[in-house]
Amino acid sequence: MSRAVRFHEIGGPEVLRLDDVPEPKPGAGEVLIHARAWGLNRADSLFRQGLYSVAPVVPAGMGFEVAGVIAAVGDGVGELRVGQAVSVVPNFNLLDYPMHGEAVLAPVHAVVAHPEELSFEQAASTWMQYITAYGGLVEFANTRPGDTVVISAASSSVGLAAIQIARRAGAKAVALTRTSAKRQQLLAAGADEVIATAEEDVAARIRDLTEGRGARVVFDPVGGATLATLIEAAAQDAVLVVYGVLDFSPATVNVMDVLLKRLTIRGFGVAELAADPGRLAPAVDYVRKGIIDGDLVPVIDKVFPLEKFADAHRYLEGNDQVGKIVIAVGPGVSR
Amino acid sequence: MSRAVRFHEIGGPEVLRLDDVPEPKPGAGEVLIHARAWGLNRADSLFRQGLYSVAPVVPAGMGFEVAGVIAAVGDGVGELRVGQAVSVVPNFNLLDYPMHGEAVLAPVHAVVAHPEELSFEQAASTWMQYITAYGGLVEFANTRPGDTVVISAASSSVGLAAIQIARRAGAKAVALTRTSAKRQQLLAAGADEVIATAEEDVAARIRDLTEGRGARVVFDPVGGATLATLIEAAAQDAVLVVYGVLDFSPATVNVMDVLLKRLTIRGFGVAELAADPGRLAPAVDYVRKGIIDGDLVPVIDKVFPLEKFADAHRYLEGNDQVGKIVIAVGPGVSR
Repeated sequence: MSRAVRFHEIGGPEVLRLDDVPEPKPGAGEVLIHARAWGLNRADSLFRQGLYSVAPVVPAGMGFEVAGVIAAVGDGVGELRVGQAVSVVPNFNLLDYPMHGEAVLAPVHAVVAHPEELSFEQAASTWMQYITAYGGLVEFANTRPGDTVVISAASSSVGLAAIQIARRAGAKAVALTRTSAKRQQLLAAGADEVIATAEEDVAARIRDLTEGRGARVVFDPVGGATLATLIEAAAQDAVLVVYGVLDFSPATVNVMDVLLKRLTIRGFGVAELAADPGRLAPAVDYVRKGIIDGDLVPVIDKVFPLEKFADAHRYLEGNDQVGKIVIAVGPGVSR
Repeated sequence: MSRAVRFHEIGGPEVLRLDDVPEPKPGAGEVLIHARAWGLNRADSLFRQGLYSVAPVVPAGMGFEVAGVIAAVGDGVGELRVGQAVSVVPNFNLLDYPMHGEAVLAPVHAVVAHPEELSFEQAASTWMQYITAYGGLVEFANTRPGDTVVISAASSSVGLAAIQIARRAGAKAVALTRTSAKRQQLLAAGADEVIATAEEDVAARIRDLTEGRGARVVFDPVGGATLATLIEAAAQDAVLVVYGVLDFSPATVNVMDVLLKRLTIRGFGVAELAADPGRLAPAVDYVRKGIIDGDLVPVIDKVFPLEKFADAHRYLEGNDQVGKIVIAVGPGVSR
């Protein structure tokens, strides 16, 4: 037997249980991973509340991110071998492959032997955030030197990943955060500028920072009024990537802005990229190189011990973090 | 001297004058065209009212479309020669090159020797509408067999051009029009289906016509509430091209639709394509082939004589037309 995080009804962190479940056996095209660390995502919280795009089937396992060691392999797993340190990219069905367990199955197409530079905690904090930011900023928006990239909800793990990727691409990273509380941490994390959305006129500040031109790239997981403001603050020919919706209210969009500035607004989910091997391979390669070069360094806010998994969810939902929330699992072996 | 349409103050059709102006002389890179027909566009009406993206400087000439015969050439005009039948693509500054005159200058990069299949009236109805529709449907949205293309304001010249281009691309063309009044004309013009927006539930009809999938391509010059509805009626991975704004009210956009359906919303103006020789050449080639093949046939609603130029503007603004409004100029020679 091994333990896994599950819930038997949708709700707050209090519905989470650490259930004993049989240790699964890998089938063809699967590996068994003994977990060392889990990465926590906003999607986990939405899924637990029944608000994610995939509806839970209770009792439901959960979790998109794990790093650990391969403990067993099925047939047809290519070069993967027992004992290898691996982590996963988010291209599997959550209902089939929940990752927040001590011993979890993963389909071979999701398994990556991550760079040696990464600890297990960092590896569990890598793929979701960097591939999401790569997909929006590099693959779709073609971020390049001279660009100003505006990143809302910048203290999230994806937001911080976007700051690092914008700078690796030679662009200026402007971080949006609700209040001044996280300003110093965001500057320390690499942001060129920080705008406190509840304290400043966002559109005016962006115009000031761009000599009136506006932002060429916007990377937004908020939607609602924030998106409407970012459309106002976008430059001629700007690209706005919407990769999440935290504000469920509709966005009141000035369509004349969209027309006259020839804006491109694109809904983007990491799954669409990760599910396409032809798009995933260059993304993984980009992130791997960035880690080896030292431009991409996962920012971990806090590591919780396994037994405090529900507290980790509570902490995520308190929105005080700057960076990734990780849950340490198993013997804590570092490589 | 020759005559040109001008206005000395912004306003309704009543401000238009047929002024005597000196016949201009072509400079380097310019040709002088003796007009045989002018094409009228919604942009002419907006410009006259001071509502276009370019502000008029009075006394202001106007007009984006002309077809006629080259009467003189400046230096450096390549293969263009006096006596040639030509028309213009919209890649010039309206303030420098107004086209609604009996004798007008055009920059060489705007001048096209149109296919022999076209009368002057048709040639004056060709480039704005087909290049706009090509840019949105072919270049940007990559319309292909199996697609459903929803075209709002379908009885406009660009709308009808979009119906023809959607069908040339192998897609199904769904025409949106305000009431049933133009239904038969739109079906006759090639629409596979017609939806009367003031009489039917637009989103429900589009779902019915696509087995619940929604429209893969949307081509909209309206904005406002129409755009919000079209976002609702869009398919997974749909592309929505906004090429005009007739409804100045903001669009209340459900951002969750944009995210979960991975929509791409793009503001598009024909000038961006026409100003780029590398994009314009394939566009002109596509339209030329479509005309020769007989798939693209300019639909002309009404031809006004020169003296009735103001009535042509009034007729445009009455919104009763299906297709292009043309003003016949000069001796009316057909080729």
